[in-house]
Amino acid sequence: MIRNFNEVIEAVQKSGIQKKIAIAAAQDTDVLTSAIATRDLGLAEFILVGDVDKINAILVSLKQDVSTWEIIPTQNDVDSANLVAKLIADRKADLPMKGLLQTSQFLKAILNKELGLVKPKALLSQATVVEYVQENRMMLITDCAINIAPTFEEKMIITQNAVDFCHILGIEIPNVAIIAPVEEVRLAIQSTVDAAMLSKAAQRKQLKGCVVDGPLALDNALSLQASIHKGIQSSVAGHSDILVMPDLNAGNILDKSLRYFADYKTAGCVLGANVPLIMTSRSDSPENKLSAIACALLQLLKI
Amino acid sequence: MIRNFNEVIEAVQKSGIQKKIAIAAAQDTDVLTSAIATRDLGLAEFILVGDVDKINAILVSLKQDVSTWEIIPTQNDVDSANLVAKLIADRKADLPMKGLLQTSQFLKAILNKELGLVKPKALLSQATVVEYVQENRMMLITDCAINIAPTFEEKMIITQNAVDFCHILGIEIPNVAIIAPVEEVRLAIQSTVDAAMLSKAAQRKQLKGCVVDGPLALDNALSLQASIHKGIQSSVAGHSDILVMPDLNAGNILDKSLRYFADYKTAGCVLGANVPLIMTSRSDSPENKLSAIACALLQLLKI
Repeated sequence: MIRNFNEVIEAVQKSGIQKKIAIAAAQDTDVLTSAIATRDLGLAEFILVGDVDKINAILVSLKQDVSTWEIIPTQNDVDSANLVAKLIADRKADLPMKGLLQTSQFLKAILNKELGLVKPKALLSQATVVEYVQENRMMLITDCAINIAPTFEEKMIITQNAVDFCHILGIEIPNVAIIAPVEEVRLAIQSTVDAAMLSKAAQRKQLKGCVVDGPLALDNALSLQASIHKGIQSSVAGHSDILVMPDLNAGNILDKSLRYFADYKTAGCVLGANVPLIMTSRSDSPENKLSAIACALLQLLKI
Repeated sequence: MIRNFNEVIEAVQKSGIQKKIAIAAAQDTDVLTSAIATRDLGLAEFILVGDVDKINAILVSLKQDVSTWEIIPTQNDVDSANLVAKLIADRKADLPMKGLLQTSQFLKAILNKELGLVKPKALLSQATVVEYVQENRMMLITDCAINIAPTFEEKMIITQNAVDFCHILGIEIPNVAIIAPVEEVRLAIQSTVDAAMLSKAAQRKQLKGCVVDGPLALDNALSLQASIHKGIQSSVAGHSDILVMPDLNAGNILDKSLRYFADYKTAGCVLGANVPLIMTSRSDSPENKLSAIACALLQLLKI
């Protein structure tokens, strides 16, 4: 079982399989800095797609030998995104990464049905992987960035996407906590209704390879003592590997709370496509970005 | 300006005004433990209402001289709640506190219109007061416990309730951040719509004594650097005194995240009535509970 981001990096290094990441609109200092760090660690090679003059200038400013980088010039962001998607579809690169362009432009190219990078019934979802240092293990929080107000059906896919990632981390039967403000089922609080449905659906094997319980308030999910104090019987309480959020409001706030108040190490993953997507955010630290790239590469090894 | 819970306690002690707290259904070890701590600090006296035999037994087990406590026996929880509400209305006690009974039973007695403890247009709301240690100041998060899915109108009152409490803490013009997952106004994300409305309403002086900005993501609200990085112009960013949550899902999760992941000291306040209500939760630590009582007493000094 992989317990921290260093172990993710080690697992990718040990695999010895050289993968290639294609960056759309790579003309960005932050993005290229993380590409250099990734290459220096021997994790992957890159194809840099975008404004070749700007890319060259940034590489020089970062003290790189430009001749050692594969660069494909394009005219604009849309061309960059489309070319990266095609490189993946044609298996000339393994992983697409978003550079300095709109998320919507990047996703539109990747989701292009003709390329087959996303299955028809798939739903892209985001999960924040957290180094839960107190317990020396990884925990996933989903969805903190993509799906605004997921329905029950969408939460089913979001949950399964996270469960599948836990399997890749070596967590055989992840414990999934469906988080709500209270641990009781109340019609007035939709997150508790969804939680009851997801729990029962998992028991009926509509979700695979996991144990699901909810509604659980965050304290019950994290602390066995807190759940005992409340008289809650739950095999998930205190042992949660995945926290499924009520909606984007809650997910985004928890994600940022962990980084700003608790100073946790985290990495964002985009799940649900046939290939992992790398979409780091401007607000990510260089360390966050490297962890996100390593998590995407890890998925690739296990697919 | 009051910067931490010790200063709240000191302010109440220095006032020298002796206040009386009436506890409904006081037969609970946790509740009586916090009452003893409050009395030992000279913050308030108590009237213990409820099951007199159980109350006596607990007091003895906590090494108290029972004769030094004012106890009023009642037959059941409803009677306890009604008697406490009447004691407040008759000015025989200053503050009502919830003991070992259902929140709904306690609130029903307090909200009884004939007693006049709550103004007709008032809305009760909860705010979590946080010792924001990195910045050596207090911050409020609202609503984390009462209002499930507040409308714009309800968020107006929830915000004003928190602003009024900041004034009591000595924060003259609190900065209010309306939190959402993104800092842009998007029709698909209701929290960003509400945030735009609240910001403009504050500018039109529909909210008093505060500066309001939103939508802001949590990182923008907390970190000036993060907001500059995103190109956001906001006098609130990085200086937020109040974080208004999108809904109960988000508020409750952030509240618990601060306690479980970041180990912050917090206290829950119930705002909006003519008297502060003390409603501690089983999951509060003895220290949390004492802070909550002190915050309620502080409000009373300033009303």
